[in-house]
Amino acid sequence: MVIDPWLLHYLAIFFLLGKGYPFTGDTPQEGYPANPRYLHPFSDLEEKICTPDQLRPKPDNSALVFGKYFTDHMLEVSWDSKRGWAKPVISPMHNLQLHPGAKVLHYAIELFEGMKAYRGEDGCLRLFRPDRNMARMLSTAKRSSLPTFDAEEMIKCIKRLIQIDKEWVPYSTTSSLYIRPTFIATDPSLGVASPNEALLYVLLCPVGPYFTSGFKPISLMADPQYVRSWPGGCGAMKMGANYAPTIYIQKQSELLGHQQVLWLYGADHQLTEVGTMNIFLFMLNSNGERELVTPPLDGLILPGVTRLSLLELAREWKEFRVVERTITMAEVIQAHEEKRLLEIFGAGTACVVCPVSSISYHGREYNIPRSQPSLSQRFLKTMSDIHYGRVQHPWAVDI
Amino acid sequence: MVIDPWLLHYLAIFFLLGKGYPFTGDTPQEGYPANPRYLHPFSDLEEKICTPDQLRPKPDNSALVFGKYFTDHMLEVSWDSKRGWAKPVISPMHNLQLHPGAKVLHYAIELFEGMKAYRGEDGCLRLFRPDRNMARMLSTAKRSSLPTFDAEEMIKCIKRLIQIDKEWVPYSTTSSLYIRPTFIATDPSLGVASPNEALLYVLLCPVGPYFTSGFKPISLMADPQYVRSWPGGCGAMKMGANYAPTIYIQKQSELLGHQQVLWLYGADHQLTEVGTMNIFLFMLNSNGERELVTPPLDGLILPGVTRLSLLELAREWKEFRVVERTITMAEVIQAHEEKRLLEIFGAGTACVVCPVSSISYHGREYNIPRSQPSLSQRFLKTMSDIHYGRVQHPWAVDI
Repeated sequence: MVIDPWLLHYLAIFFLLGKGYPFTGDTPQEGYPANPRYLHPFSDLEEKICTPDQLRPKPDNSALVFGKYFTDHMLEVSWDSKRGWAKPVISPMHNLQLHPGAKVLHYAIELFEGMKAYRGEDGCLRLFRPDRNMARMLSTAKRSSLPTFDAEEMIKCIKRLIQIDKEWVPYSTTSSLYIRPTFIATDPSLGVASPNEALLYVLLCPVGPYFTSGFKPISLMADPQYVRSWPGGCGAMKMGANYAPTIYIQKQSELLGHQQVLWLYGADHQLTEVGTMNIFLFMLNSNGERELVTPPLDGLILPGVTRLSLLELAREWKEFRVVERTITMAEVIQAHEEKRLLEIFGAGTACVVCPVSSISYHGREYNIPRSQPSLSQRFLKTMSDIHYGRVQHPWAVDI
Repeated sequence: MVIDPWLLHYLAIFFLLGKGYPFTGDTPQEGYPANPRYLHPFSDLEEKICTPDQLRPKPDNSALVFGKYFTDHMLEVSWDSKRGWAKPVISPMHNLQLHPGAKVLHYAIELFEGMKAYRGEDGCLRLFRPDRNMARMLSTAKRSSLPTFDAEEMIKCIKRLIQIDKEWVPYSTTSSLYIRPTFIATDPSLGVASPNEALLYVLLCPVGPYFTSGFKPISLMADPQYVRSWPGGCGAMKMGANYAPTIYIQKQSELLGHQQVLWLYGADHQLTEVGTMNIFLFMLNSNGERELVTPPLDGLILPGVTRLSLLELAREWKEFRVVERTITMAEVIQAHEEKRLLEIFGAGTACVVCPVSSISYHGREYNIPRSQPSLSQRFLKTMSDIHYGRVQHPWAVDI
């Protein structure tokens, strides 16, 4: 029997939340108006387009740094607990006017998503599995006491925003347009309580290849004294609150000459995530069988869309075992010593797949091999073929 | 030997951070300019005072809801990694202009403090131990990869802000002026990295008694499936990130008819905090001695200034044992059954002292007695006497 990993994710969230909210936009949330349509339909979208003099010059593809350049327009939808969702509005990129007492600035009531649009070799623009990002955004909104919305209408609005700024989608099959849906609580009151006012907005950023020097492996610092998430917490949610505590530790890893943090959990030092990516291990198990292993959706890790996609691809290929299970540092070291480790890599929207060259742990540096042919490179090629329209695939959604 | 609980707190933070930063404004932080003065001195303070028509009407003392009304002015100091701190500015209360990609809105790089100013019975305005709040703000800033500053200069600027808005300090010995120093990362870039731009600002809110119906005991929901903080995390820091995940759980407790959450930790269900307060238990120990117990500063709880003050007062009184130690729900239940529980209460800046009437745990409701004479009421009176200048005390600082 094949179990959809997202189903497991949903079940984990239901368990964590203690009640089974359906993640659609159709169910009123406690305290919100019982309006069956949480986000105005796409047909209500208001568009305020830049005048020619407001359009900004586009950076060279070679100069694209992640999240530094923004396109000409943004999408905004405001909400309040009395009137529900306002009409979605696309307008020229502008600063937000926020009351200094806004809840987002004090209690971090904020969440986001990360997804991408690609310019295919055939000239068509495509999104990658936007329904998955919207489903995750809704589950994070519930856990953040923010209102839910109609995911399909939201995707239509995002598509329209990309159409308006379509010239910002890089003409390149190593670059893409990063899409950042963001959701913040805006009410000007210092009470630690559910928000009554909120703003959902979407920004677009042209981004280059994650590593300027190509498909370059990264070195990791694994230090069990720093813990990213824990049972009973929100580590499976894409809340801003999961990121602030990691910045200082990331800096520590850089000062020690590493690129990213390998986040461990528990007395047995379970591997959870790497930097802001999910982690995959390709190895021979003790029976000598090839096995792709990734930590399970147990509430400690983010349910990545790239993670899900790689699992689905590998299960379709049926060439090696595909396992979602807890894996500890002791197991990694044993496999390393017995030369059973074939490859380790991170997976996420920003870099798609990112190979790991070494792990520093308990004062020792473990060099990670790279199997030939490389599985991570095969995943990258398969995903790129889908992203850039070289193959037809249901995950690629026309804009 | 008496060990200063704040010393323990500092040691715990040093341990957690893995290095011993001194918490003064005089030590350059990695990546920040080696300018010995991190915040411009008070003498550089720029003041833009409201015109008479900009002054807003003050609410009645009876209408004061926590964090709803703000005074006429605010204090702002901006920072960037190239130029360091700008001059502090006091100006009329206004909205902030933030880039929608500002790091505070995506990765919750934000922190705050909560302190109060009181109008004494002698007419003098006083702060309560502002040095403690500023020390905690600096330690949270370090952990948040935000720059440090000169705490004494900051206190001078806050005093000046209060002097300008002094008519907003309630003429009442049950109300006060809540002070909210806030520190946010403002650079418009989506990279998950240390901020290069930030804004420190201070808001003032007149606030009434925490409970409109007086010194009213609250009922708590203790559910071990929800965990506020964990070893290796940031639970001891006043970061916004600690609050967002609690809102949904607080709502769950309200739906079940409780006022606050009693946060438990670990397989043995240790008591950590109550809502946004520290927790105290007054009880007879197994030898029949009276004992005031509060969880230790082990990195899981916020090092409250009220917590510290109550411990210091109790140690000065020398009338009962005062112990900082881990306490579990099993111990609480045993003490309850053996009628050794005298009183449980929360302690924090907002309510000062807040008695607990009951704890709901594992489907049972435990009613908490209240010793006569009540220790919590004695603490409240002692603290109020200091706040409102009925006694002279070094903790009360003239404005």
